[in-house]
Amino acid sequence: MSHTPEQVIATLVARDAFSQWLGVEVLDARVGYSRIRMTVRADMVNGFGTSHGGIVFSFADSAFAFATNAAGTLSVAIDASISFPVAVHVGDTLTAIAEQESVTNKLGFCNVTVRNQHDVIVGHFRGTVYRTNRAHFPSDAST
Amino acid sequence: MSHTPEQVIATLVARDAFSQWLGVEVLDARVGYSRIRMTVRADMVNGFGTSHGGIVFSFADSAFAFATNAAGTLSVAIDASISFPVAVHVGDTLTAIAEQESVTNKLGFCNVTVRNQHDVIVGHFRGTVYRTNRAHFPSDAST
Amino acid sequence: MSHTPEQVIATLVARDAFSQWLGVEVLDARVGYSRIRMTVRADMVNGFGTSHGGIVFSFADSAFAFATNAAGTLSVAIDASISFPVAVHVGDTLTAIAEQESVTNKLGFCNVTVRNQHDVIVGHFRGTVYRTNRAHFPSDAST
Amino acid sequence: MSHTPEQVIATLVARDAFSQWLGVEVLDARVGYSRIRMTVRADMVNGFGTSHGGIVFSFADSAFAFATNAAGTLSVAIDASISFPVAVHVGDTLTAIAEQESVTNKLGFCNVTVRNQHDVIVGHFRGTVYRTNRAHFPSDAST
Repeated sequence: MSHTPEQVIATLVARDAFSQWLGVEVLDARVGYSRIRMTVRADMVNGFGTSHGGIVFSFADSAFAFATNAAGTLSVAIDASISFPVAVHVGDTLTAIAEQESVTNKLGFCNVTVRNQHDVIVGHFRGTVYRTNRAHFPSDAST
Repeated sequence: MSHTPEQVIATLVARDAFSQWLGVEVLDARVGYSRIRMTVRADMVNGFGTSHGGIVFSFADSAFAFATNAAGTLSVAIDASISFPVAVHVGDTLTAIAEQESVTNKLGFCNVTVRNQHDVIVGHFRGTVYRTNRAHFPSDAST
Repeated sequence: MSHTPEQVIATLVARDAFSQWLGVEVLDARVGYSRIRMTVRADMVNGFGTSHGGIVFSFADSAFAFATNAAGTLSVAIDASISFPVAVHVGDTLTAIAEQESVTNKLGFCNVTVRNQHDVIVGHFRGTVYRTNRAHFPSDAST
Repeated sequence: MSHTPEQVIATLVARDAFSQWLGVEVLDARVGYSRIRMTVRADMVNGFGTSHGGIVFSFADSAFAFATNAAGTLSVAIDASISFPVAVHVGDTLTAIAEQESVTNKLGFCNVTVRNQHDVIVGHFRGTVYRTNRAHFPSDAST
């Protein structure tokens, strides 16, 4: 029996130790879309005292993975890029919205926008996935 | 009195809580160059059981920050991109080499290559910084 | 006397020999936004017989330049990235929409989507500009 | 009978109308590598009177295509990014060196550096290809 996108995402999140460390909360997720939230902590800063760029990237990358994997088959990231318009600070609450904008047989192209609690964009992310045929739940593959 | 690149990097690393969480070890760093190392742990995996893409990005981003900030003035990341040729696994030891390839008055352009313990490239990263006039050590600014 | 965005764009287009070679037609342009059109010709193909990737990039880059320069001061491209979901063919009519999504004192971040005549996305482009203080019309600078 | 990399490149170049318009000259090309040259003309400028960013991108993209297709099977660009450290002017002679740095079963990752006649880097380009099984010469496929 096939799994719903909600079940797929719930399982991916449960297995995703780093997203848990980040404190990622899934607000909404379906095939080709996700919306997630986290709050920046003091152990996430870089040497300048602001959020490490890797935190904003990682958060966007999680939204990207959820949106592109919700259909139940494994999509793996090939390329990703990010721009940082403004700095992120400890205590900021971030929201990421991932939208898969085009899909081909083998590839998916996804845009992710990260905003802070003032609705200011703090990260513009784009990612490309390679779409495998491998099911996240082996039992789904046989249906 | 001005600080050496080694002192600047040591201070940046000491303040960089997230690089410490990653377990980043600075092997070599000078103006425009850094070489760092870390080992991937079980709390760094994504929902597929391999290293979260954000870990490889964050590690490369730290190498990038060290290379572009070693001269003692603050350079902040504007844009970065990464490609993931092969998956990274728990237990892998990663080495990143960052090289600033061109510098203008206001901008710096840096290449970072991340390899695993088998010398296989697991991340191709490029980043662009905006070079401010702000000294990491206020006392340096007055010299 | 200051120039309107329409006058700025008209002047930029008139000077832009390569956009003219491409056959770029400006459908709409204002501060932070542009919509342009072109048709792919036989002299724009690569060695595979489809549109050279540089044609789609160049077209998107023109839309990006118009959107980020319409206010009358020079913004120059620092970084740009593009993804190619599907091939473009001779005879295809392309439309690009550029939207500047965030602006800081010194930087602007712009998204450009290129579609063919079937409304299929053929290029996802992002670009970052450095915003100078230099006026496109020296007389504007003195106002 | 199989074709040599030199024969493959010569055929790609002969078919590549846009690279011909650019005036691309192939100095060296083999599997995973190419070095090419061109001179910027007055019909390649943007609205600011310098080389259109699309010219530098297109030139790098041609080097990328030659390096990643020399083995005789079709590799198509998925994603590419470019940074522009300094402006390019009419009359500048550009040289691009493309090096494929990693290859997997389905993907190839290539770095291209573009320099002007003063050996100054004017473009940092990276591109990712999807490696198909399709031969450029159908007769090669049957061997």
